[in-house]
Amino acid sequence: MINFIGITNDHHLEKNSSIENVDFMSFKWYWVDFSEATDEEMQHLSTTFHFHPLAIEDCIQKFQRAKLDYYREYTFFVTHTVHEEDNEIKKQEVDFFISESYIITFHKKPSMEITKVWNLLLAQDNLEKWDPYYVFYEILDKIVDNYFPIIYKIEDELESMIKKTESKSMDQLMDDLFETRNMLLNLLHIVNPMRDLLYRMLNSHHLNLNRIEERKVYFNDIYDHLLKLSEMVMTNREVTADIRDSYLSLNSHQTNKVMKTLTIITSIFAPLTFIAGIYGMNFKHIPELAWDYGYFISLGMMVVIGSLMLIWFWWRGWFK
Amino acid sequence: MINFIGITNDHHLEKNSSIENVDFMSFKWYWVDFSEATDEEMQHLSTTFHFHPLAIEDCIQKFQRAKLDYYREYTFFVTHTVHEEDNEIKKQEVDFFISESYIITFHKKPSMEITKVWNLLLAQDNLEKWDPYYVFYEILDKIVDNYFPIIYKIEDELESMIKKTESKSMDQLMDDLFETRNMLLNLLHIVNPMRDLLYRMLNSHHLNLNRIEERKVYFNDIYDHLLKLSEMVMTNREVTADIRDSYLSLNSHQTNKVMKTLTIITSIFAPLTFIAGIYGMNFKHIPELAWDYGYFISLGMMVVIGSLMLIWFWWRGWFK
Amino acid sequence: MINFIGITNDHHLEKNSSIENVDFMSFKWYWVDFSEATDEEMQHLSTTFHFHPLAIEDCIQKFQRAKLDYYREYTFFVTHTVHEEDNEIKKQEVDFFISESYIITFHKKPSMEITKVWNLLLAQDNLEKWDPYYVFYEILDKIVDNYFPIIYKIEDELESMIKKTESKSMDQLMDDLFETRNMLLNLLHIVNPMRDLLYRMLNSHHLNLNRIEERKVYFNDIYDHLLKLSEMVMTNREVTADIRDSYLSLNSHQTNKVMKTLTIITSIFAPLTFIAGIYGMNFKHIPELAWDYGYFISLGMMVVIGSLMLIWFWWRGWFK
Amino acid sequence: MINFIGITNDHHLEKNSSIENVDFMSFKWYWVDFSEATDEEMQHLSTTFHFHPLAIEDCIQKFQRAKLDYYREYTFFVTHTVHEEDNEIKKQEVDFFISESYIITFHKKPSMEITKVWNLLLAQDNLEKWDPYYVFYEILDKIVDNYFPIIYKIEDELESMIKKTESKSMDQLMDDLFETRNMLLNLLHIVNPMRDLLYRMLNSHHLNLNRIEERKVYFNDIYDHLLKLSEMVMTNREVTADIRDSYLSLNSHQTNKVMKTLTIITSIFAPLTFIAGIYGMNFKHIPELAWDYGYFISLGMMVVIGSLMLIWFWWRGWFK
Amino acid sequence: MINFIGITNDHHLEKNSSIENVDFMSFKWYWVDFSEATDEEMQHLSTTFHFHPLAIEDCIQKFQRAKLDYYREYTFFVTHTVHEEDNEIKKQEVDFFISESYIITFHKKPSMEITKVWNLLLAQDNLEKWDPYYVFYEILDKIVDNYFPIIYKIEDELESMIKKTESKSMDQLMDDLFETRNMLLNLLHIVNPMRDLLYRMLNSHHLNLNRIEERKVYFNDIYDHLLKLSEMVMTNREVTADIRDSYLSLNSHQTNKVMKTLTIITSIFAPLTFIAGIYGMNFKHIPELAWDYGYFISLGMMVVIGSLMLIWFWWRGWFK
Ligand SMILES: [Mg+2]
Ligand SMILES: [Mg+2]
Ligand SMILES: [Mg+2]
Ligand SMILES: [Mg+2]
Ligand SMILES: [Mg+2]
Ligand SMILES: [Mg+2]
Ligand SMILES: [Mg+2]
Ligand SMILES: [Mg+2]
Ligand SMILES: [Mg+2]
Ligand SMILES: [Mg+2]
Ligand SMILES: [Mg+2]
Ligand SMILES: [Mg+2]
Ligand SMILES: [Mg+2]
Ligand SMILES: [Mg+2]
Ligand SMILES: [Mg+2]
Ligand SMILES: [Mg+2]
Ligand SMILES: [Mg+2]
Ligand SMILES: [Mg+2]
Ligand SMILES: [Mg+2]
Ligand SMILES: [Mg+2]
Ligand SMILES: [Mg+2]
Ligand SMILES: [Mg+2]
Ligand SMILES: [Mg+2]
Ligand SMILES: [Mg+2]
Ligand SMILES: [Mg+2]
Ligand SMILES: [Mg+2]
Ligand SMILES: [Mg+2]
Ligand SMILES: [Mg+2]
Ligand SMILES: [Mg+2]
Ligand SMILES: [Mg+2]
Ligand SMILES: [Mg+2]
Repeated sequence: MINFIGITNDHHLEKNSSIENVDFMSFKWYWVDFSEATDEEMQHLSTTFHFHPLAIEDCIQKFQRAKLDYYREYTFFVTHTVHEEDNEIKKQEVDFFISESYIITFHKKPSMEITKVWNLLLAQDNLEKWDPYYVFYEILDKIVDNYFPIIYKIEDELESMIKKTESKSMDQLMDDLFETRNMLLNLLHIVNPMRDLLYRMLNSHHLNLNRIEERKVYFNDIYDHLLKLSEMVMTNREVTADIRDSYLSLNSHQTNKVMKTLTIITSIFAPLTFIAGIYGMNFKHIPELAWDYGYFISLGMMVVIGSLMLIWFWWRGWFK
Repeated sequence: MINFIGITNDHHLEKNSSIENVDFMSFKWYWVDFSEATDEEMQHLSTTFHFHPLAIEDCIQKFQRAKLDYYREYTFFVTHTVHEEDNEIKKQEVDFFISESYIITFHKKPSMEITKVWNLLLAQDNLEKWDPYYVFYEILDKIVDNYFPIIYKIEDELESMIKKTESKSMDQLMDDLFETRNMLLNLLHIVNPMRDLLYRMLNSHHLNLNRIEERKVYFNDIYDHLLKLSEMVMTNREVTADIRDSYLSLNSHQTNKVMKTLTIITSIFAPLTFIAGIYGMNFKHIPELAWDYGYFISLGMMVVIGSLMLIWFWWRGWFK
Repeated sequence: MINFIGITNDHHLEKNSSIENVDFMSFKWYWVDFSEATDEEMQHLSTTFHFHPLAIEDCIQKFQRAKLDYYREYTFFVTHTVHEEDNEIKKQEVDFFISESYIITFHKKPSMEITKVWNLLLAQDNLEKWDPYYVFYEILDKIVDNYFPIIYKIEDELESMIKKTESKSMDQLMDDLFETRNMLLNLLHIVNPMRDLLYRMLNSHHLNLNRIEERKVYFNDIYDHLLKLSEMVMTNREVTADIRDSYLSLNSHQTNKVMKTLTIITSIFAPLTFIAGIYGMNFKHIPELAWDYGYFISLGMMVVIGSLMLIWFWWRGWFK
Repeated sequence: MINFIGITNDHHLEKNSSIENVDFMSFKWYWVDFSEATDEEMQHLSTTFHFHPLAIEDCIQKFQRAKLDYYREYTFFVTHTVHEEDNEIKKQEVDFFISESYIITFHKKPSMEITKVWNLLLAQDNLEKWDPYYVFYEILDKIVDNYFPIIYKIEDELESMIKKTESKSMDQLMDDLFETRNMLLNLLHIVNPMRDLLYRMLNSHHLNLNRIEERKVYFNDIYDHLLKLSEMVMTNREVTADIRDSYLSLNSHQTNKVMKTLTIITSIFAPLTFIAGIYGMNFKHIPELAWDYGYFISLGMMVVIGSLMLIWFWWRGWFK
Repeated sequence: MINFIGITNDHHLEKNSSIENVDFMSFKWYWVDFSEATDEEMQHLSTTFHFHPLAIEDCIQKFQRAKLDYYREYTFFVTHTVHEEDNEIKKQEVDFFISESYIITFHKKPSMEITKVWNLLLAQDNLEKWDPYYVFYEILDKIVDNYFPIIYKIEDELESMIKKTESKSMDQLMDDLFETRNMLLNLLHIVNPMRDLLYRMLNSHHLNLNRIEERKVYFNDIYDHLLKLSEMVMTNREVTADIRDSYLSLNSHQTNKVMKTLTIITSIFAPLTFIAGIYGMNFKHIPELAWDYGYFISLGMMVVIGSLMLIWFWWRGWFK
């Protein structure tokens, strides 16, 4: 689907759902949105707008980092939106071709962020403030704002993990940590290229040429958010590592304590059972067996030996 | 609450608790403090001072790293104060709008640092030395000085952990270490952006334009402190890791030693009890049972076997 | 084998399988491919083309990182192709000497990438777009495209490892992880120098001199791929470390659980067997033995003791 | 205590133990040493020399990294000497104010390095080579030379740890390693700021203004030493980590081997004792008990079972 | 021993084993080699060549990183040769003083690399290509070439470690890994300063002044080797860490498997032996003892209990 909005020189807005018959020259600037475009519609990228084959290839191909490429008459941006679905991070690509007189957006799946800005533009009374780079800023701002709920959710989960480690089974906790670490790693590889894109936008010399310069304070605001995001992701990865180390230590320590107690029980009864075994032997001549208080003496001996062992273990600090 | 201090051209000070009727133009420079401002009072940021919407948004929003933004007529700073309450680090944001003729401070909670400098200014006889950037320096100096007690306290705790590891339970120590590591990580993410803020202040070309240049030696002094703080946080994180590794090794080694001793006891009695079992069997024809000294021979055999095992274990070094 | 293609000034193509009698001066530009050259054929590098001895040494020597060297009249490139054979990464070197009027390719083993571009060039109708650097771009693009299937395969294997950890034996999994980590490390040391080579190409001042500048957008596209690849390799190495840590924790935890259960069994029967041992002793006077219900009382006592131990263990949470 | 040396324009040296009556202007250059200065004597820093309050604060305050600050008329240096006392690193601060006509040294404890250079200067015949920066070089050279014995001692200790791991108790070794790692970390935070100080001295543009430039080769020599020191500290930290990992592995492996042997003993006697238990039962009708060779058959069976178990364990490789 | 070669302006070579009577001015350039120089011979460095005392100190002192220092009339280089002897890395220092008219080499032990180039120079027919910097290149090339056999040998050892882990004892493997890691760390601290030396040579502005510029392609070739070497060392360190982690995991897993089997045996016989113990008690009234088939019923019960335990363990997956 291809949508068109054109702003005339006297700041009027014209809307059109087909770009076949549009006279692009008659507008001060215009916005064309390729949303879930068919193969046929994609042809317009080359036939109507004459974009570079490599940029078009980047639109169509799936694997891309966020980036910007300067072409002579336009700048090409690859960005990524992120949404959570069923506990998984869904990453979608949104591409932009921007010049002073147009902004072309391209996305294979519907983008909530673009829809919002599209409707915002349609609802505007005063269009003077708007131009292609301001549209770009508004969309980018919304894209980056949508990164935060995901990292917040991860932080909440980590918070609850820290509190509930005891009631959770080991297998569950390890699984959760592994998934969280993976999610954070994926997020890092979305956030960092976006951050670098903004850094390049703000520091490139190419930018003196167009209107980004006077919009710098706006894009700087987005860059701030991305810096903060990148830091939050890294911190949370370190926190997951700390949770894991701390939990594993405690868990192995607790198992060891159990084993120690059990082994103490077994080892205390070993000599006692041995003594009982001795007087269970059937030798003809075992003098003690004939004593009147032999049985009680042997019982007493067992109590003494068992107690001495317990005292020795306690003295060695093995019950702590 | 909005407070106002104005310094006239002849270095007199005027104080006012309302900014409604102030004639800002009549002062050489002035300081307006927004402390726990109501929503209504916050309006002054845009209506009276015409600050950029993005800077105002940063004041109101909660999540911010320390940073500075250059606007045409003023510089905007986000900084963080830190206080300890109930063993937790409480982080508060203090924002500054600074130009040659004013300093506007904004904070949602009362700030001890600002109160101190406010009172210091009121108590001054000679106001010649003071200007908006000197006020900023004085507040920043106090903010950064207040970071130290927290890191000192952490260092003291680590010091006592190193000494008292033996008397502490494993669970308590792991918990303490985890919390300390977390605190240090949070501190790092407050200190490092502050340090970078100072670095940018000291190295930016924008600064030739205003009076920071001649105050450089003052801000450099604060930067020193932040460099030292950042290093102390990192060192302490490494020390926590070392304490954990060292304690876990020792703990697991001690458990192993206990288990070894217990298992030695059990395994020494295994063959002895077996022998006693043999002569406890009820076969009709067991020649040894009829021997006169059978019982004593069997006891002797057990002593010999037990001793040989002990000697062998000792010779293998298993009692070390 | 030495192959020759020459493009005349009027864009015609001439092919020749020997370079002995070629008049190089009569062509606008030409491509000479040294494929599995004999020692004798290699002589042409110095006698016919007069390349620098150090560059020729780099062709012949085996150990090389990808790199580029600027010589006065040509640029020398060392690149690496990668193919998978029998679960191992096979790395092959392809070297290039490029100037405005020629491209010389050198490779000791047949290179699929070069064959493809060679045939592509032969099949062209319009040769105007082609020049030595465009040939280089086409080959490099294919070389880098062939890196992806290997990293995709590794990612698939890791994906299946994560899912199937339970059904796999420990030894097998550790082996697989070790091999995968090794493969990723080798890949990293192929990808990173290639990435740095492209970076230097795109940022060097030497490049203003030749036609790379106007081809920059093409080489930039390859650089994108290499950035992405380098990131993928690093991420996958981190994922392998996470899988290993997570699997080892779980495995050791499971072993501990088994041991705990077994030790509980042993330690519950230790006191019971001891009691049975006591009443198996042959003392003449053991009053209990004469009791009518002695046997049943002793059985009951054993049940009580065993149950108390089970209850205590359960209460301590040792069955979790 | 404040000491004074002045060098006149005709290269004569004047010594004075009080600076009250000194006519500073009459000297080509002079050296004032504040050694363990009283609060009263410290007043001279501001009243006599008019140093910046922040620099004076740095002298008096305890927590400082090594650093240099450029003031208009002098450069201020904070450096650290290091000595070992009772196996602990004692760090002392030595501060310098240096201009073309004076060097002021400040230290709260006596400094062997300064005493040495002071005496060296007093013993000179030809004073032409000397000036404030040469004095600074001589002191700095001695300060840095004194770092080496400490790191050498640590290396010797590590060397002996590697050789004697077996005879040392685990607790002792872990303690030693922990202390050594701590010492190295502290050393790192002394050496690295010193190294950075030298780097800034050698690369700053401020230095064209004074005589450091022609002394560059001297300060470069010290910088070399600090680079080497920093590297040695890092290497030794890695070696400590390696020793710990290696020792822990071996220790846990040895414990495991002991446990395995002990458990083998216990598990071999378990079935044997069980058989003995069976024939110790008092059932009226146990046919085997009546056999003539029942006892010997049962003994034989036990030997066979025990041997089979041993063979099986051996075949499984459990005795390795 | 001091050796001398002088090249006259008409490209003749003069050799001399004493430099006492040499007229240095009569040569286009000359090479003086201080090999195992006596203290007396070392005097020539200052008396004959007037080198800077700090450079001479660096020759004589033992601890040095590879480095270069620019003096006004010459450049001073410290480099390190590496040879393997008795499985240890022997590091030797070779120092160079180079100007346009001379190269002075200094080494305390005989250097195979210098001998080779010395003889190569003596055997030359055409000396036009040679000058002090070409001599330096030839020696440096040989020094760096000699680093490779050592790293190749380490790689071979690691390769064989990976294959033979099973047949090696734990203690031996840990020792080998520790030594290899140490060797690699030492190598790293030789290779990296050499690499940085080359980097500085190739990128310094000082170099425009002398003939290195036109030799750049030669020194670049050596720099390539050092980059590759540094990478190989780092990779091999990572591989050692991987081998250790992998081996330790497997080893501890195998021990655990053994312990599990042994403990299963013990815990299966615990209840069986207990039952036998019950019927070994001597109570007067134990009804079962009088049953005709009591013995066989009890045996059957034991078989059933043992089998149920085995089935339960198998069902829980404890035999895997
Ligand atoms: Mg795409
Ligand atoms: Mg936003
Ligand atoms: Mg903002
Ligand atoms: Mg915003
Ligand atoms: Mg962080
Ligand atoms: Mg961590
Ligand atoms: Mg705020
Ligand atoms: Mg302060
Ligand atoms: Mg200070
Ligand atoms: Mg201060
Ligand atoms: Mg540190
Ligand atoms: Mg550590
Ligand atoms: Mg080659
Ligand atoms: Mg491609
Ligand atoms: Mg692309
Ligand atoms: Mg492509
Ligand atoms: Mg990564
Ligand atoms: Mg890890
Ligand atoms: Mg990890
Ligand atoms: Mg001080
Ligand atoms: Mg020295
Ligand atoms: Mg030196
Ligand atoms: Mg020296
Ligand atoms: Mg290192
Ligand atoms: Mg290590
Ligand atoms: Mg030397
Ligand atoms: Mg070579
Ligand atoms: Mg080469
Ligand atoms: Mg070579
Ligand atoms: Mg590497
Ligand atoms: Mg590793």
